[in-house]
Amino acid sequence: MDIKKLVSSIKAEKPNVKSVYFVGCGASQADLYPAKYFLEGNAKELRVSIHTANEFVYATPAGCNKNAIVITCSLGGTTPETVAASKLAMDKGATVIALTHSGTSALAKTCHHLVVFGWEPNYSDKFDKMNKALIIAVEILNQYEGYADYEEMISGTTAIYGIIDEAVKSVVPQAQKFAKSYKDDEVIYLMSSGATLDVAYSFSICLLMEMQWKNSGSFNDGEFFHGPFEITDKNVPFILLMNEGRTRPMDSRALDFLNRFDAKVTVVDAKDYGLSSLVSSKVVEYLSPMVIGAVLRVYAEQLAIARNHPLTKRRYMWKLEY
Amino acid sequence: MDIKKLVSSIKAEKPNVKSVYFVGCGASQADLYPAKYFLEGNAKELRVSIHTANEFVYATPAGCNKNAIVITCSLGGTTPETVAASKLAMDKGATVIALTHSGTSALAKTCHHLVVFGWEPNYSDKFDKMNKALIIAVEILNQYEGYADYEEMISGTTAIYGIIDEAVKSVVPQAQKFAKSYKDDEVIYLMSSGATLDVAYSFSICLLMEMQWKNSGSFNDGEFFHGPFEITDKNVPFILLMNEGRTRPMDSRALDFLNRFDAKVTVVDAKDYGLSSLVSSKVVEYLSPMVIGAVLRVYAEQLAIARNHPLTKRRYMWKLEY
Repeated sequence: MDIKKLVSSIKAEKPNVKSVYFVGCGASQADLYPAKYFLEGNAKELRVSIHTANEFVYATPAGCNKNAIVITCSLGGTTPETVAASKLAMDKGATVIALTHSGTSALAKTCHHLVVFGWEPNYSDKFDKMNKALIIAVEILNQYEGYADYEEMISGTTAIYGIIDEAVKSVVPQAQKFAKSYKDDEVIYLMSSGATLDVAYSFSICLLMEMQWKNSGSFNDGEFFHGPFEITDKNVPFILLMNEGRTRPMDSRALDFLNRFDAKVTVVDAKDYGLSSLVSSKVVEYLSPMVIGAVLRVYAEQLAIARNHPLTKRRYMWKLEY
Repeated sequence: MDIKKLVSSIKAEKPNVKSVYFVGCGASQADLYPAKYFLEGNAKELRVSIHTANEFVYATPAGCNKNAIVITCSLGGTTPETVAASKLAMDKGATVIALTHSGTSALAKTCHHLVVFGWEPNYSDKFDKMNKALIIAVEILNQYEGYADYEEMISGTTAIYGIIDEAVKSVVPQAQKFAKSYKDDEVIYLMSSGATLDVAYSFSICLLMEMQWKNSGSFNDGEFFHGPFEITDKNVPFILLMNEGRTRPMDSRALDFLNRFDAKVTVVDAKDYGLSSLVSSKVVEYLSPMVIGAVLRVYAEQLAIARNHPLTKRRYMWKLEY
């Protein structure tokens, strides 16, 4: 499905959209975050928010009506809360776009418009979800309000697949070094800012807590100095995700503090992967989370190997009803 | 300052406000969350978002212009990022309301409208900040769009002080029990939903990480089942904050899961403190975070005593520049 055409067909039917809701659970909520961050930050008219699906169902926003577009996302398309949120949004008259890898899933059948994303076999496919969500946001902004950097953004969202696949080629040695150093730590903290905030969040709750049963927390590095930084010490391990773009000074400030107190810190920096040579500086911040996320995926894989704990190992998920 | 009059004076000057931004750092951002949650959930026209102050400065939303109200908050009124955000918003033509305890602070001098909140000597004073932010949101909604439950909400925000001071009277024994049981734990997780989400967050990053140098993480309990729940085990300590109102089934579902696997869990439940006998069921969810937050404050105090680590102890804050 061509996303530009999809959004223009929605606009033809609904020229007066007021609200755009992004709805998902866990990693599939987090992967919507760059799109939400982009649209919330650049729109002057559209209302924008993001919700974990069950909260969207139990405390549905008043603006979820015929003047709303609701974008729901689930990898396998079977997440019950997300399917319920899609159904509820349709019942309320909203236009629902479902993002899923499975074109035959329950979610794929519970929407007005379906966008199927890739997942295998390349690392870049794992970010097709995040990228397609971002493209939907870009088309909504451009078609409803206009967006000055539209061409740069479309060019960036096209180039990102190649950038990701190139980036991950060289990172195994540093990922192994990370894994060896962090494998026995009790807890690992993640920090970032801007569009990459929820890459920190999803690495924390999914890759570490879910897939490695490892303690973790995450926060905006702008918040670091207003609470969490008191935990800083030589033995407290951090992963800092550094953006290209406007919020980089926030990331740098956190790094300076961690280095000053000789903290244990691993940096994944978008600047190291050629992003800015292929993507306009006007939009590079919105692409940062994808290259950072892809590199982190390799870090998680090496951590799993070093800990002899496969990323697919679960004690509850897939094993029981809850 | 009468908040109703304050908002009506803003409306007289700016009848076409489009965007409302809540801006702060750490606990002073978190204390704005119930207001943001209320306004985002109930408005059909107004655009609503919340930002950590430095990100608002570095990546200022495009809607921050003469059609915006920006509500900035800092307890002492000296937080540099928040003062900078206020200044920037004024420069862009937005109307700035500053919330602070200090009427002579830098923040108090960098705004169009000042709202001073109490802080001492009662527990309820510690939630005057959160409550006044909520009242601002209620007045904005009612005056710009209309709000059906306005009377119930004003009545609730008036009753909450007495409810809080009554609630905290009886909780020392259970707080001592909590402190004794959790004082040696490596990490403590916090969960909640709805308006109370950021009470979990601020207890995690401020009371535990900042004031106790204790490892912690927090998340929406709707997200628990999409990652974090794999960490569940007998020895992993949780604090679950249960709301009255629409998202309570989400809190209950998380509790059922924790109990099923015999996890270590402490519940702070708004239902235990007479909220619903004094506050309309239509609005009780928006008052839940204040009574829960006040009870948690006692828990933190007892934890500090049990650990012989005063809540005022810092290694970096107040001691150096950063």
